[in-house]
Amino acid sequence: MSHGTRDTACSDIAVRYPAGMSKQPSHPSYPIDETHDPKLESWVESANDPSTDFPIQNLPLAMRLTEADDGDGFWAGIVVAVGDELLDLNLLAASDIFDDDDDDWDFMSIEDLMADGLWSRLRPKVQRLLRKDDKRLRDHRERGRIMSPAEGAVFALPLLTGIGDYTDFYASIYHATNVGSMFRPENPLLPNYKWIPIGYHGRASSIVASGAEVRRPMGQTVADGESEPKYGACKRLDYELEVGAFIARGNEQGEVIPIGEAEEHLFGVCLVNDWSARDMQKWEYQPLGPFLAKSFATTISPFIVTMEALAPFRCGAFVRDKDDPKPLAYLRSDANEKFGGIDMQVEALISSKQMRDKGMEPVRVSRTSFRHMYWTIAQMLTHHASNGCNMQAGDLIASGTVSGPGAGEAGCLLEATWKGAGKDREPIKLPTGETRFFLADGDEVTLRGWCEREGFRRIGLGECRGVVTPAKG
Amino acid sequence: MSHGTRDTACSDIAVRYPAGMSKQPSHPSYPIDETHDPKLESWVESANDPSTDFPIQNLPLAMRLTEADDGDGFWAGIVVAVGDELLDLNLLAASDIFDDDDDDWDFMSIEDLMADGLWSRLRPKVQRLLRKDDKRLRDHRERGRIMSPAEGAVFALPLLTGIGDYTDFYASIYHATNVGSMFRPENPLLPNYKWIPIGYHGRASSIVASGAEVRRPMGQTVADGESEPKYGACKRLDYELEVGAFIARGNEQGEVIPIGEAEEHLFGVCLVNDWSARDMQKWEYQPLGPFLAKSFATTISPFIVTMEALAPFRCGAFVRDKDDPKPLAYLRSDANEKFGGIDMQVEALISSKQMRDKGMEPVRVSRTSFRHMYWTIAQMLTHHASNGCNMQAGDLIASGTVSGPGAGEAGCLLEATWKGAGKDREPIKLPTGETRFFLADGDEVTLRGWCEREGFRRIGLGECRGVVTPAKG
Repeated sequence: MSHGTRDTACSDIAVRYPAGMSKQPSHPSYPIDETHDPKLESWVESANDPSTDFPIQNLPLAMRLTEADDGDGFWAGIVVAVGDELLDLNLLAASDIFDDDDDDWDFMSIEDLMADGLWSRLRPKVQRLLRKDDKRLRDHRERGRIMSPAEGAVFALPLLTGIGDYTDFYASIYHATNVGSMFRPENPLLPNYKWIPIGYHGRASSIVASGAEVRRPMGQTVADGESEPKYGACKRLDYELEVGAFIARGNEQGEVIPIGEAEEHLFGVCLVNDWSARDMQKWEYQPLGPFLAKSFATTISPFIVTMEALAPFRCGAFVRDKDDPKPLAYLRSDANEKFGGIDMQVEALISSKQMRDKGMEPVRVSRTSFRHMYWTIAQMLTHHASNGCNMQAGDLIASGTVSGPGAGEAGCLLEATWKGAGKDREPIKLPTGETRFFLADGDEVTLRGWCEREGFRRIGLGECRGVVTPAKG
Repeated sequence: MSHGTRDTACSDIAVRYPAGMSKQPSHPSYPIDETHDPKLESWVESANDPSTDFPIQNLPLAMRLTEADDGDGFWAGIVVAVGDELLDLNLLAASDIFDDDDDDWDFMSIEDLMADGLWSRLRPKVQRLLRKDDKRLRDHRERGRIMSPAEGAVFALPLLTGIGDYTDFYASIYHATNVGSMFRPENPLLPNYKWIPIGYHGRASSIVASGAEVRRPMGQTVADGESEPKYGACKRLDYELEVGAFIARGNEQGEVIPIGEAEEHLFGVCLVNDWSARDMQKWEYQPLGPFLAKSFATTISPFIVTMEALAPFRCGAFVRDKDDPKPLAYLRSDANEKFGGIDMQVEALISSKQMRDKGMEPVRVSRTSFRHMYWTIAQMLTHHASNGCNMQAGDLIASGTVSGPGAGEAGCLLEATWKGAGKDREPIKLPTGETRFFLADGDEVTLRGWCEREGFRRIGLGECRGVVTPAKG
């Protein structure tokens, strides 16, 4: 079995901006339009830098924490990333700039912006405001309050009311095959894998914003050669490089979300680090699945990059082997097959405390594309609701570890240090001479994600960061 | 292996009310006190009936839905069950009765009553008000508004803000052994079972209040003798008789909940019907555990019976076989061993539509005691937080199917119709001549729970009901 040489159907799209952009094939729910025009420039100069994650074609949303004037605590406000700056959307809405606009500028949270497609309507208006030729904000007396440097900003989780339910999938066939091979070399993939977007319910309360410290968990593990467990600090702490999607619109309990409508239930994506305690997982996971090996912490990147911003980077769903089953009808649509994927680069980097003390750059451990996922986000969502389970605005569904077919494309250390059945593991080598099979205390894991395509501006997800702190034994 | 002949350590308590009640051994977090005095009677005559679930020694909390005066929707208010009546706690608090009381009568929700032990302080005051010799409410001009018949009341979920995270355990060794025997007759219990309170994250959004219809789910199943799945209506719909516990007080992420403090994080218990699509479960559950087979609906009983009300019925934790491992230190305490269990009778009944049309009573399928659980609620909670996972007020943890050692003590149809390895299944016979291996459309499942003990008033949980409606294919 080989998945390594196949490509997805991205080439079907063949967009050549700027000629006839509106006629380019694109996902019917998220057409490529004039907001994706790469010639649009901003008076925020850093947004015009080709390497920025945040040109005005992106405009992702986050919740920033600002210290209260009296120094007593923080308050959270909505911000939009624009190059190296943050636009305070609450202050913008409170200003006189959109006084004549008949849309609802009375939102209090990203939840409000998710509802009824509000942000889909406001986003082009904010983009217009940031364009080089627009003076309304550029020359506004409150510009200095509304715009501020992104550097040093502290972010909260994007949803004020918290993440409702969190579901983690297992949608990379490379990850599933690699992990399966370690335990069942003769039968790496279980029979249901190519039929079902396998997933499980995760713990919502322990999802934290990028930058939060992650304490090494304590738990039951069985040492090699022993038969009885001990309770102690996890010795095999791993990251998992994942992509998450926020639900903007749910379904009634007992109803389903047809595959043709699934994309319209999505709001946008973020990066997810599904920290995993491999030694705890091994001992606990049968028969009901991962539990405490995952629930101690999950870190997400601060910004939600909207489905609209990603429109130019949609690509075909995974191209299955000819002897793979076709997805069952409820998981299949033309639009999903042609445009259900996202050609998004993702990578994971590690730096040890020693490296950071010496001013060394982090080391990349994983890099691959999200287009290699066997199941699309729409398929995961449609499957999730196919039993009548009610999805709700603010739910987060994560993809599972994003691993690709090639060397260096493994989305976690468990895979990245694995050299194949029967062979020894080989550690990650750090520039200090340190080595890693799994994460050490003080290690920082950084996830990044971005989309690039000829004829379009780069659209990035920013960073998802977390430092491992010692167990509290 | 036999667990059938052992008893729990209940006899250690040997309470003989009324002599020296306050000196009776009882769980240190929930001592037996004067509020449990069985001689306390109420001016609400139905609360004095020995068969009621709701004497004034109980005082469980629920959220009742009341139709708005203009007929446009419902509003939810807190009620306390007293015999056959409901006391409207919001109206009571708004009345002048507690004007001179210095406690906080300004609560808006059961969440508010959970916080800082507020209900633990108010409960004795409400009990005092309901006693036969107390005239403050009995003769109050607003009694007719504050008290109303329970019959016909419609209940919401008890928490206004919804259930945060929902976790389902697997704490009955009889259930785990029975189910394991079906799949692995030679090795029914996995090696981790006696070490770890096995659990998994459940879906919070689809938890519904007693009385809500439950639609038969659609999903992928593989018919006997076939190798490929089809998407269609579940054919093996089951109930699971469980007990749930609401968390009143959480822990900070990265911190743990020591076993000696676990009980003080609990608020009270309810009945849980963890509806299960067995055919879907069989196909989907490997390797990450149950997902859509459970997430379509979970029904809970309306009332939360507090830990205080249950104090007289605490009993020893499960008495392990002498060759069973002792729980690891973090899951062990004297108080848990002596009083960590709850001697609570639970039962499940079925009635078909035909039975109800003919006015027949429901048929009992399962009856057992919650004291047979291998793990106590405190152990489940302590284990859950042992990796630093932050529990939050409003979280629900369910026990898993409550099955006991004897015949008729199986807490789900999968077990109840199973006659042992190698033997045919035998259906449940209904008085109409109908038979059931699994639930049919129109079947109503009713769960009940109650505690009885010489020298104390019966304390009940009320009912948890749900009717199965046809799949929407």
